[in-house]
Order: sequence, then structure tokens, then C-alpha cells
Amino acid sequence: MIEHYMTEMGGYRDRVAQVDLGGGEVSYRGIDDDDAEKYIGARGLGVKYVFDKGPDVDPLGPENRLAFMTGPLTGTQTVMSGRIALVTKSPLTGTVTDSHHGGWSGARLKWAGLDGILLDGESDEPVYLFVEDGDVEVRDASHLWGKGVHDTIDQLGEEVEGKVGRDVSVMAIGQGGENEVRYGCVINEDDRASGRGGTGAVMGSKNVKAVVVKSGTDMPKPADPETFQEGYQQAMEVIRESDVTAPNEGGLSMYGTNVLMNATEEMDGLPTKNAKHTSTEAYSEADGVDVQAERVSGENVRENILVDEPTCHSCPVACKKEVEVDVTHKGEEMNVRMESYEYESAWALGPNSGHDDRDEIAVMLDRCNDLGIDTIEAGNMMAMAMEMSEEGKLEGVGHLDWGDSETMIDLIDEIGHRSSDLGDLLAEGPERVADAKDAHGNKLSVKGQTMAAYDPRCMKGMGIAYATSNRGACHLRGYTPAAEILGIPEKVDPYEWEGKGELTATFQDLHAVSDSFDICKFSAFAEGIEEYVLQYNGMTGRDLSEDDLFEAGERVYNLERYYNNLAGFDGADDTLPNRFIEGHPDAIPGTGASEGELVELDQLKAEYYETRDWVDGVVPDEKLEALGIDIGPGTGVSAGDSAAPADD
Amino acid sequence: MIEHYMTEMGGYRDRVAQVDLGGGEVSYRGIDDDDAEKYIGARGLGVKYVFDKGPDVDPLGPENRLAFMTGPLTGTQTVMSGRIALVTKSPLTGTVTDSHHGGWSGARLKWAGLDGILLDGESDEPVYLFVEDGDVEVRDASHLWGKGVHDTIDQLGEEVEGKVGRDVSVMAIGQGGENEVRYGCVINEDDRASGRGGTGAVMGSKNVKAVVVKSGTDMPKPADPETFQEGYQQAMEVIRESDVTAPNEGGLSMYGTNVLMNATEEMDGLPTKNAKHTSTEAYSEADGVDVQAERVSGENVRENILVDEPTCHSCPVACKKEVEVDVTHKGEEMNVRMESYEYESAWALGPNSGHDDRDEIAVMLDRCNDLGIDTIEAGNMMAMAMEMSEEGKLEGVGHLDWGDSETMIDLIDEIGHRSSDLGDLLAEGPERVADAKDAHGNKLSVKGQTMAAYDPRCMKGMGIAYATSNRGACHLRGYTPAAEILGIPEKVDPYEWEGKGELTATFQDLHAVSDSFDICKFSAFAEGIEEYVLQYNGMTGRDLSEDDLFEAGERVYNLERYYNNLAGFDGADDTLPNRFIEGHPDAIPGTGASEGELVELDQLKAEYYETRDWVDGVVPDEKLEALGIDIGPGTGVSAGDSAAPADD
Repeated sequence: MIEHYMTEMGGYRDRVAQVDLGGGEVSYRGIDDDDAEKYIGARGLGVKYVFDKGPDVDPLGPENRLAFMTGPLTGTQTVMSGRIALVTKSPLTGTVTDSHHGGWSGARLKWAGLDGILLDGESDEPVYLFVEDGDVEVRDASHLWGKGVHDTIDQLGEEVEGKVGRDVSVMAIGQGGENEVRYGCVINEDDRASGRGGTGAVMGSKNVKAVVVKSGTDMPKPADPETFQEGYQQAMEVIRESDVTAPNEGGLSMYGTNVLMNATEEMDGLPTKNAKHTSTEAYSEADGVDVQAERVSGENVRENILVDEPTCHSCPVACKKEVEVDVTHKGEEMNVRMESYEYESAWALGPNSGHDDRDEIAVMLDRCNDLGIDTIEAGNMMAMAMEMSEEGKLEGVGHLDWGDSETMIDLIDEIGHRSSDLGDLLAEGPERVADAKDAHGNKLSVKGQTMAAYDPRCMKGMGIAYATSNRGACHLRGYTPAAEILGIPEKVDPYEWEGKGELTATFQDLHAVSDSFDICKFSAFAEGIEEYVLQYNGMTGRDLSEDDLFEAGERVYNLERYYNNLAGFDGADDTLPNRFIEGHPDAIPGTGASEGELVELDQLKAEYYETRDWVDGVVPDEKLEALGIDIGPGTGVSAGDSAAPADD
Repeated sequence: MIEHYMTEMGGYRDRVAQVDLGGGEVSYRGIDDDDAEKYIGARGLGVKYVFDKGPDVDPLGPENRLAFMTGPLTGTQTVMSGRIALVTKSPLTGTVTDSHHGGWSGARLKWAGLDGILLDGESDEPVYLFVEDGDVEVRDASHLWGKGVHDTIDQLGEEVEGKVGRDVSVMAIGQGGENEVRYGCVINEDDRASGRGGTGAVMGSKNVKAVVVKSGTDMPKPADPETFQEGYQQAMEVIRESDVTAPNEGGLSMYGTNVLMNATEEMDGLPTKNAKHTSTEAYSEADGVDVQAERVSGENVRENILVDEPTCHSCPVACKKEVEVDVTHKGEEMNVRMESYEYESAWALGPNSGHDDRDEIAVMLDRCNDLGIDTIEAGNMMAMAMEMSEEGKLEGVGHLDWGDSETMIDLIDEIGHRSSDLGDLLAEGPERVADAKDAHGNKLSVKGQTMAAYDPRCMKGMGIAYATSNRGACHLRGYTPAAEILGIPEKVDPYEWEGKGELTATFQDLHAVSDSFDICKFSAFAEGIEEYVLQYNGMTGRDLSEDDLFEAGERVYNLERYYNNLAGFDGADDTLPNRFIEGHPDAIPGTGASEGELVELDQLKAEYYETRDWVDGVVPDEKLEALGIDIGPGTGVSAGDSAAPADD
């Protein structure tokens, strides 16, 4: 056991609850010290625990495991440490996936005496879990089934006689998860989502409506305060000095993630109209419309509809931007206040869907959150549907015009409830829609998950990051825009492909560390491995070097890839939407500053695989051994095997 | 015992060491729960423990006690919580005094397993104390006696085989304390001083050269993380939003305390030439000299000689301004790098002594720190000497011209070593010099301690604050410039006397709270009692209301005053230097914006005493009872007694 698991009374307790939903039994286990050192916690340990159930399980079947895992830094005073990872086999991608809540729920779970909860099996009836003083109780939730997230959270707060957001956290699913929308997510009381990959659908498949945590006093303290404080001060210093994170000064603190809307538009890196264009300007010129990214930008939001800037646990940045809008929708006046207007969400539901109605986007975001469906996936699925509709591929199912934001608002409900043919279809995610409707050319997905608001034709690092992300296309698994847009740790030419394979692998490993801590990866806008290792060693009393910690991140990334390899994924799956690939017959080159640009996928993959020591996307047994990954049967691939060409 | 004193192993330990220096024995005691609730910690508890030895002791005799006390928030994650109070009966004033170190030494003492150390008696030979794992060892220090602070710290770091400033703290005296300069202070490895009141002289009188702390792992954790985190976030938010404290943005963060030099000069509130003038401009005009406050201002320092901005434990502001200067002194080239160029120190050694040589001031500051003497007192004593010299009152002792900075540099050495007649005289402090040389009209002191860089003719609150400070004239016991200059919590007219008695009492009580926590009082530039109570309750698990906490501050202030009353102080001692008092024959009115201004002392005292429920500066027994102060014999004064007129 590692040091901070020691309890107030000087003993050790088993702080991971394992819930057998079929039998309703709860057992408790400790965290093996060797596992903790190898996989850190949260994301890393969660993947390990999901791996323990085997990679061949049906994501929506009882044999899949859903792990709620905090990390060794969650809920501590470490900067930006209010996070918890949800890890499972994704019903959207078939890969292992992890998705994290911000806010305070991870911290509260830790303070309530638990490091994690593993959900196994499937309950016959709807239930919710109630956590208090380190114990988990399985309670009836029949009366909550069918309710939206916000009502569910309110009602559960009353039932457990606590004050939600004060001493109670609720992580709940809405109708999206209940109906197994493949990108159903889990939302907590801070409107923060484990957004991607369908963790809410898995929870719904298990008939679990919510996890309710009554906060306690088990806040970990540093085993080595000197080292911890050194790391903490250093972290705060670099955060204060960063143009991105400096409180009330940096772009992220002032405008939230949506500070990037104008920036990407200006560099012709904003995928628009299902990524047919690389800016709203190009889209407007080509189609004779008037869509402007600026109208949905962070600056515009701040000036016009901002009402509050709440923070997550232990965060000085406060990137959340709470907004309030008045919208008339089909004659009905609505007032909507919602907690965060994020860049990627606004992009997917706005410019990428062909419009720039700032306030309607806020309504859509709120609906997605209440239904518990991923905002990025929902927006991209509607953009895909628009393109398919234009090409006649939706006949008999429905119709959707570019930029029809009014219809989008209702369609979100239909997706969450699966209440129309079109909604039911789009609830299946891009890969299944493409299969059903011969629409592979219309999807913006990799491994079944759609990309985010960073155009890879303009940022080549993002191209290889989307292609090789272990959870399907994702901007957060290797956030190269840090270097390609923001110049962190140093500015690199976004259009240059060379070096981006290596850069991406580095970011992937660094993020695997922060996701396993579990601290916000926005820390990496200012902090580096130096600040990470000081805070980690200080809190746990371990004595890892920077290299050790980086290697742990690499180990986590390889463990995921290994899981995926055993689940049937190889280099052929490390690809991109056709329109981005250099040499592809359906390629659509960028315009403006990105004029003629496409992604040099083959070159990038070759460099990336070489950096990773992988053989065509597969982790060879030698690499597993070198990293000390000693679970599972191995891939059977040797480092000596020649790389097969990628099969697109 | 309060909750956070519980040890890792679930037991309680007695965390206050009591060192009998005569016998060399160390015993350990706990903190009585009732005392902790009443007097909080640090300053408050320290005063109580000093009170236990009786108010009649000789400050430099073995019966005086020197308490090193941390508070319940010291060394925790509370914002700005790296502080420790040194409390004793002052050899400068004869009152009880408390003076605090910033930096990390308080935090390290806590982490090493102690909440405080009480030094009693007197050692025959020089010793130092070594603290490790909650134990105190008394060790020989004969080889260190006679050394300066910086050498002492370096050598002790080597002796205990630790890295100073990393896992070792040293709080040491220099020759000033050894030679019982009445304003000898204690300096730690961050060049932070328990500057005022002569704590170093008391330590020297006990033959204790240093307290060396080997840091440990006993970092307190919050008993109620929810409440603590709420307070912490709120504190960080208001600090970020304050024009004064906002990291890398606010005046204090950018320019340190010395941000006030230009501000006070411009408002004609900078006492100049031993406070004969209220600005350097007026001084220059009157005397035909060219002395400009701007040349020693924080802005000027930042632009020209700043080399680093280190922080204290858990502080986002980083007000320390480390400087490096090259100075030629009497033909010798010197390079001096020192850790902090403070406003009040620069003022006393610069404009108030009649010059503006920025770099020579840095040299003086460094000498004071190495000798371990208070920079404010040293500067003011030299200014007093200049005025006395001009008036012929130093005949036979020495001579000193206004603004002779070159001589000042050497005179500082002579004070610390008591190695010349003049140095030996000035080492005695203003009251004794005034007695010896019939120079009461030349002193800038109240109760034997000189004032700081805020002219009370321009800030009437500062007038009543100097007059009623329990440790002698002091800007930090009721920091009214927050309201009078900076507009915190709201801007008040600095020239108006009405309301200032009440304002001063409020600041005095609020600072008594933060000094007892022990957190930096600069927190009050942004935080209020609301943030204080959340962090305090969260850390300790207590459930005090804002009123309870304010009352605890009031109780501490009254306990000090009660001690002083028993030591012979009453309303007659609540006075001001003659030149500031309205109606006094030696009054010198202000000029410029402060034209004609003097301090309405009588009116201010009447209002203040009414606010305090005091009778002519004495705490009546009814007030002691109302506050639950149940130690000592009482003052014998009843609230019904009529106030006697102040006897000046």
C-alpha cells in the first residue's frame, strides 16, 4: 500500500470498492503497491482493472467493467487536482477508453474514504450507489429512471439529506445513458462530463443511474511536505507566468477553452461544415452564407452572456465560463443558464454544423448535459447527417439542412431519447451510421469516435494524434496544439509534419501521467514533468525520477494500445477521415493559410511507430517486457517483424 | 487537543517543547483545548504563555520567556501560511511583543513535529537548539558565537548535514542579538526577520545562537476538507482579483511592499528627515538638497536591481524582491545580493535619514540582516542621531550629518557590535537615548519603539494605531493604510480623524486573528473574516462563527493590553512623537496635500477607548470577564471609573 492510504487511525483500509451489481454485493480491495508504482492511478490503474476483465467483452454486456478511479493526487492540494477517471471498454469505439470529470466529485470520493469504485455485472432494476465513510450502498433508483441529469442530481441531494455541491457529489446519467446512446456520458453536479466514449451508456447498460458521494474528511496529506511544497510553489509560479493560464490574465483564465475559436479561425485551422472548409470565412465565401467564428468565440461570450466563472477543486485558473441566454425556440421563450461554454462543444454544435448562433449553442449544450450525451459527438453526428442529407443518404430516415440550428435543438432530444428514426440512427455513432448508410466518406471519426475542433490539415501533429489516439479521434490524448498554436513548450511550425510523430508520443505520455494522477491536463500549459514529479513524490513519499514518471506514462499508453491490439486493433485503424489524407481520392485540401494542405499520414505514422517501437500499430512483446507490462498473453508480435503497410 | 495535533499513528503527542536553558532539560506539553479556542495559536497563545511567567520580569533576565509559536494554520495549505510568531517581553519597550518570520521556518517547525518552543532561563554557554522528529536537543554553539547570521546559517546547515532552505531551517541571531542591542532580531534562511521589539536580544541574553529545524512530514491536513477548500478557493479568488495582491499584476506582487514609496510621497505622507517633512519634495525645497523618493521606489528597484522574486510558503503573491547591487564604499568595491528590499526599511535607512541612495540602502539592509538588528529601528535611530547631532546633543559621543549614507553603513556595524560610543548609545533604542541625552523631542517612538513609513499627519488612522499599538509604535498592529491609501475594504479620507478610532480597533483585532493563525497579514489586502473563518474551521474542524473569530482577535488584543497594564502601562503611554500632536508646542504641521495637518490625538483616543470599552488605556475587569480572560489578578480598574486625562 502506498503511504497516503494510511487512515487517520494508523491502519490501512481497502479503498477500492468492487460492486457486483448482479448480486448487489460490495467487496473492498487495496491497491497493489507494484500496480500503483507502474500505473500510477486513475487512468492507468483503471485501464489495468478493465484489462483484468479481458479485452473481448461486449461493452454493453454485464462482463464489461466500469471503473471510477481517482489517482494519488486527486483531492489533494496539488494544483488542478479535482479529477476522476471513468475507464471502461467503449461501446462507441470498442477500444478501452477513459474519460474524466472535472469539478469536485473526484475529490469528494477520495475524502469519503474511497480511491475508486469498480462496477461489475448488471443490476436487474435501476439502482444508485451511495458512498459514505468509505462504504458503498446499493440503493433502488426506479423512481429516478427516465429523468434528466439535473432533476436526478437535485432529487438525490434531497434523498441523502445533503447539500449538492457543498458536501454531496452526484455523478449521474440522463436518458442518453439509459437508452444506451453510444456516446452517452456521465455528468456531475458541476455540469462536468466524462464526455467521450460512452461511459454513460455502459453505466446505463448496468442499470446504474448515479453514484452519490457524501463527502468526508479523508483528505490525503503529503508524505513529504518539503518536496510537495516545492512542487506546488513551482507549479503555481509557472501557472502565474503563463500567457495561457495566468489567473484573470491568461487566455484560458479569461475566455476558457473557447479562447481558441478566433485563434484557429485566423490560422485557417477551424474545421467548418463537417470539415469541408478550414475556416468559417472560407465556408461563407464558398456557400454565400454569413457564418463567423467570432460570434461564438470566447471573447464574444465573455462580453455578452457570461454570468459566472466557477472553479474546479484546487484550481487557480477558473476556465469554466457559466453563461445565461434568452432564446425563443419555435415560439417558446426559454431562459437557459448553464455552467460551461467550451470551445470544442461550441465548435461541433456551431461552425462545424454550419451556423454561428451563440445563444442557441448554449441551449444545445444544456440539453446535451441534461440528457447526458457527449456534446462533441452529438454536434459532429448532426454535421455528418447534414452532409449525408445533402448527398441523399438519409432518405427514408430524415432530413437535415446545413446550419439548421432550430431543428438541431429538437434533434438532440430525439438522439437522447432515440425517439425518431433519425435520432435513433445518430445515437449509434459515426462508424455504425457509416456502415448502415454507406457513408464512410462522411464521417469525421477514427476508430469510431469523431475528432474535435482542430483541423489536422493545419496542425499536422493533431493529425497523427487523432490517428493514434487509443480511444479514437481525440484532441486530448496528445494535445499538440499546445506546441502548434500556443507555442508550449516551444512553438513548432504547425504545417511541418516532420518531428510531429515524436512530439505526439511525448504529449501522449505526459498526458497519461496527468490523467493518472489525476490532475487536469491544462496543467501542461504551464507545468512540465519537473513540477509533476515533485508534487507526486511529495504527496506519495515515493522517489521517482522524471524519467521514471515519463516511463510510467509511456507504460500506461502502451497498456492501452496492448488492450486494443488484443481487441483486434492494429495499424490499419490508425488512420484519419478520408478528406484529410494526402493522396486519398476524397481528400479536400485546406484553404487560406492552410492552402493545399493535407496530412502526410504515412510519413507521420512511420515516424510515430519508430518512436514508439511499435510494429504497424502493435506493441511487440519485447516492448511489453521492456516496460514491465506482465499481464495478458502478449500480442505475439515481435520487434523483428516487418511492418505491414497500413490498410485503409 | 484539537484535531490536527493527532499524529500519523493515531495518538496525540505533546507538541510544545519547553526548554529549561539553565539545566539544559527539555520537556513537552500539549496545548490546552480551551486555550486554543480562546487564543487561537501563534501570537495569541504565545502571549498567554509569556503572561504565565508574569509581567514584571526583566526582559533580558533569565525569568523572561521567549516563545517560538506556530499557529493552527502554519505550514498548512492555507494561503500565505508560512509564518511563526516570536513572543516575549520586549527589552526595547517593556511591553509584551510579538514578531513574525515569513519564509518557511514556521512551516518546517510544524512539519518537524512541533507547534512551538518555549525558551526559559539562560544557558551558561552559547548553545543552539536542534529540532528533529518532534524532539529538541540542546547543542553547544561556542564555535558560532561572534559570527554573523549568514555564516551561522551556512555552518549550521553543514553541521546538521542538511540542505538549508530545502529541508533545514535556521533561525539565528547575529552579533546584534549577542550584544543585546535592544532591537536585535532573529533572522532565518530566507533573510526574513522577526524584526521588531528585540526578540534577538532576548535570545542573545539566553545565550541561544540559533534554532535549527530538520524538516519532517507532519504536515497538518484539514479536518473538514469541504469547508477548507471552500475557504481556500475563495481566498485565492479574492487574492487574484485584488489590485494589490493579484499575482504578477497587483502592486504588491509587482513591486513588493515598496510599491508604497511613490504613493506616500505623492500624497505627502512620507515622513522625511526624521519626520520633519511629509515628503522628500518638501525636504528638498526647504533644505536645498536633491532627495527624491522615486529613486528608492519599488518601481525603480524593479527596473534596475531586481534579480529574483522568491516566495514564502504557500503564497501566490511573491512580494519579496531580491536585489543585487555594486557599491564602492570608501574605495572598496562591494557586490551585495540580498533577499528583500522592503518599503519601511528603505524608508528608515533612506528618506527618513535624509538621502536617496538606492544601492547603499541595499548594503545597509544586508548589514542589518547579517548583524541581526531591526532595519526600521536602526534607520530611525540614525535619523534621530542626525537631528540630535544638528542640535548639539551628541557632543562627546559622535557626530552624524543628515544623509551621510557612507557613514551610516559603518555606523550599522558599530551599533551591532556596540563598538563605538555612538553605536553603543544608539543600540539602546530611542527611549533610553532620549533619557540619557534629554532628547525626548527628537524621538519618533511610542512606548520605546519607533514608527514606520506612514506619516500620521497624513493618515490619522495611523496616528491612533501608533499610539495604541501594544508593542510600541508599529504600522502592522492596525494597518489602517489599507483603507486610507489603498481603499481596502473601502476608501476612507486619510485626513479625517472621526471613525479612525473604530477603524483602528477593527484592523487590530483582524490582524490579531491572522497573526494567531499564523498567516501573513497581507492576506487582509484581499481576504476578510469570511475567508479566515472557512480556512480555520476547515483545518481544525472547529465550528466558529465570524463573530466568534473576531472576538478571539479582540481577546488577544485585550490580553496583550492587560499584560501591559500590569507591567505599568496606561493611557499616558498611548501617545505620539511630539511633532505629530495637535496642540503640542513642538508640533510640526505637514505640507503639500497635508498642509497644516496634525493628529487630533485626544479625540482619536476618546473614540478608540470607547470602542474598546477601556478606561484610559486600561482594560477594566468587566471587559476581561466579558471576553473570558480568566488569568492573572485583573487590573483593579472598573468600567465605572472615570477616565483620567492622558499625562504627556
